[in-house]
Amino acid sequence: RVNGDRLWDMLMEMAKIGPGIAGGNNRQTLTDADGEGRHLFKAWCEQAGMTVAVDRMGTMFATRTGTDPDALPVYIGSHLDTQPTGGKFDGVLGVLAGLEVIRSMNDLGVKTKHPIVVTNWSNEEGARFAPAMLASGVFAGVHSLDYAYARKDPDGKTYGDELKRIGWLGEEEVGARKMHAYFEYHIEQGPILEAETKQIGVVTHCQGLWWLEFTLTGRQAHTGSTPMDRRVNAGLAFGRILEAVQDAAMAEQPGAVAGVGQAFFSPNSRNVLPGTVIFTVDMRTPSQEKLDRMRARIEEQAAKICAELGVECSVEAVGHFDPIAFDTTLVGRVRDAADKLGYSHMDIVSGAGHDACWASKVAPATMIFCPCVGGLSHNEAEEISKDWAAAGCDVLLHAVLETAEI
Amino acid sequence: RVNGDRLWDMLMEMAKIGPGIAGGNNRQTLTDADGEGRHLFKAWCEQAGMTVAVDRMGTMFATRTGTDPDALPVYIGSHLDTQPTGGKFDGVLGVLAGLEVIRSMNDLGVKTKHPIVVTNWSNEEGARFAPAMLASGVFAGVHSLDYAYARKDPDGKTYGDELKRIGWLGEEEVGARKMHAYFEYHIEQGPILEAETKQIGVVTHCQGLWWLEFTLTGRQAHTGSTPMDRRVNAGLAFGRILEAVQDAAMAEQPGAVAGVGQAFFSPNSRNVLPGTVIFTVDMRTPSQEKLDRMRARIEEQAAKICAELGVECSVEAVGHFDPIAFDTTLVGRVRDAADKLGYSHMDIVSGAGHDACWASKVAPATMIFCPCVGGLSHNEAEEISKDWAAAGCDVLLHAVLETAEI
Ligand SMILES: NC(=O)NCCC(=O)O
Ligand SMILES: NC(=O)NCCC(=O)O
Repeated sequence: RVNGDRLWDMLMEMAKIGPGIAGGNNRQTLTDADGEGRHLFKAWCEQAGMTVAVDRMGTMFATRTGTDPDALPVYIGSHLDTQPTGGKFDGVLGVLAGLEVIRSMNDLGVKTKHPIVVTNWSNEEGARFAPAMLASGVFAGVHSLDYAYARKDPDGKTYGDELKRIGWLGEEEVGARKMHAYFEYHIEQGPILEAETKQIGVVTHCQGLWWLEFTLTGRQAHTGSTPMDRRVNAGLAFGRILEAVQDAAMAEQPGAVAGVGQAFFSPNSRNVLPGTVIFTVDMRTPSQEKLDRMRARIEEQAAKICAELGVECSVEAVGHFDPIAFDTTLVGRVRDAADKLGYSHMDIVSGAGHDACWASKVAPATMIFCPCVGGLSHNEAEEISKDWAAAGCDVLLHAVLETAEI
Repeated sequence: RVNGDRLWDMLMEMAKIGPGIAGGNNRQTLTDADGEGRHLFKAWCEQAGMTVAVDRMGTMFATRTGTDPDALPVYIGSHLDTQPTGGKFDGVLGVLAGLEVIRSMNDLGVKTKHPIVVTNWSNEEGARFAPAMLASGVFAGVHSLDYAYARKDPDGKTYGDELKRIGWLGEEEVGARKMHAYFEYHIEQGPILEAETKQIGVVTHCQGLWWLEFTLTGRQAHTGSTPMDRRVNAGLAFGRILEAVQDAAMAEQPGAVAGVGQAFFSPNSRNVLPGTVIFTVDMRTPSQEKLDRMRARIEEQAAKICAELGVECSVEAVGHFDPIAFDTTLVGRVRDAADKLGYSHMDIVSGAGHDACWASKVAPATMIFCPCVGGLSHNEAEEISKDWAAAGCDVLLHAVLETAEI
């Protein structure tokens, strides 16, 4: 068993960097706080006897050598970046649990045939730079490096410039590494495990996703002196599309979600009908068919609504992955480890996207979930218990040992 | 007749200060650009032989003395501040036309019994600090000076601090002046005069207004892993309220408008259901009954929509005036002047709010409108012709001369 207190202490120590406003964190990717968090993680890894490499996306790889020089490493990864008002555990748990696995192995004097690499992927959240899971996407060959470097935050700063600015632009070619297997331990971010009182989620699949960014162009005009029949009202079109997004998800129940998290009115003045409304729709489901249908339906409805109001509508896809099935051998090892350790568990589909989704494109990959209170995530109030954190970390240790071979 | 070329040159000169991004202006109240515009206006007034006083709200009063030391002044006023992406004429036309009236009188050697005061009211737009027409509101006793000083812009800066910062905090007590009459010349900001091919709008009334600021509090949560039936979706509530706002205005046709110009999603991240959505509704109509009904209906509908979704809803009124009737004697003088000068004209109700609305609470007041292309305002593309500008200024000159007595 791992040292649950030590894991918890690391989590609480990391949470001091980039504190939020309500007990959580704001350690968005490539901010100064992100840089500080990386330094702390690197120091801990080196204390545990690992060597740290950084690739040209800023992803950090901390290696514990194996006994067979020819064996490919087993990876344990997740992310240290957070949402603007994020929790202390989303991503961080998986990275620091990886480190705790290494520390536990060190304590026990265990050597493995395969090296073990604990990974901190850059920009998993996609909050500052869309899309999410950007660095693992480049690693898996889904995005080009140039595409990634050109991603812009809302202030117009690019990923490439900001990576250089915080001093974490590494030299290693992205995706050059080969993986024997990839494990990711994460909080569920949903309500299922808690509701079913299970300690462990055995993650078999991940929902597919589309992020669509809509730009609605209306006629910017005075709210008081512009008669109703002369309005080209992008705000009203937005309102109707919000309802259409809800309808599209409700039509695919159960097992589909859609919503809008981000919206910008411009010029955003009380007495000006907006010239533009820009917003993103996030839609997900484990079914490829439903995903395709939801996207088509939302785009069609939006076009229809806008046509009726004379509003111009343009759409850009800013994030996408198809539903993912994880490696059944690794999934089996997670299930077996939970059984062996006596933890209650259930198979589960990931509602959120994870670096494991992209890793699964280039290696056998899977995930382990830990419950979270009220299913709440992407919220500073995100909470887990020390025991929950330790239980999943135990399962991670055993599944990794099984795969890395003693 | 006034000198239309000179008026136009002043308009174009002022438009160089605080240029916009698309041919208009961003000279928002109490910004550095606002300060610069004030200096230019002051210099022009002094060149025209006027003395400039400033009150504690920053409102500028440029006086041309009269022949009777006991006669109260006739005021000509409007505003030099603009929307963030505003036009070159909204407000500016009225102030500089006042100055052109004085210059024309100087050219003709005309003396009046009553002094004439050209006024630049602070913060008419209400874009940076709500409510609109703030300084004229304090002048008329509608708001206290403390209330006005405490108004905050979106960055949390206060009106009082920013007024001091730009160096235009005057010493004169606000509202100490008495007015014989108040005239305001403004662009219509709506499509009616152009559609009816009239050169002059004789403004008889102004619509009443409510600005309601709604704060919707939902449950900030992950867009992917939060099932539809566990969402407390403030964004969806906002969508439905946008539709309800539209419905409330449509139920009161003709002669009522309502819309949303400003909205903030928080934390405004693509994969986070918003914790809060804050937005303002702007509703207007010339009918007191309709105004009361629209407000009640929008508040009721919003409460109902939010209750159904479990979203918390709070409302604050951040701007209000009841429908206004202007002084019939002054209205008659504007109509007579237009007739005498041979300009086509029609009676019209102001769709926008103006400082004249508050001035009308403490003095006989009225307004003159000039058409604007496509009825477009609060848009950098706002446009008028030099001839239109001059025609209204001629009417202003004659109505003012009639009132100030030669
Ligand atoms: N796990 C997580 O929240 N990742 C961010 C990408 C997503 O929105 O699913
Ligand atoms: N004239 C004008 O646009 N004033 C701003 C206040 C309003 O919204 O009516």
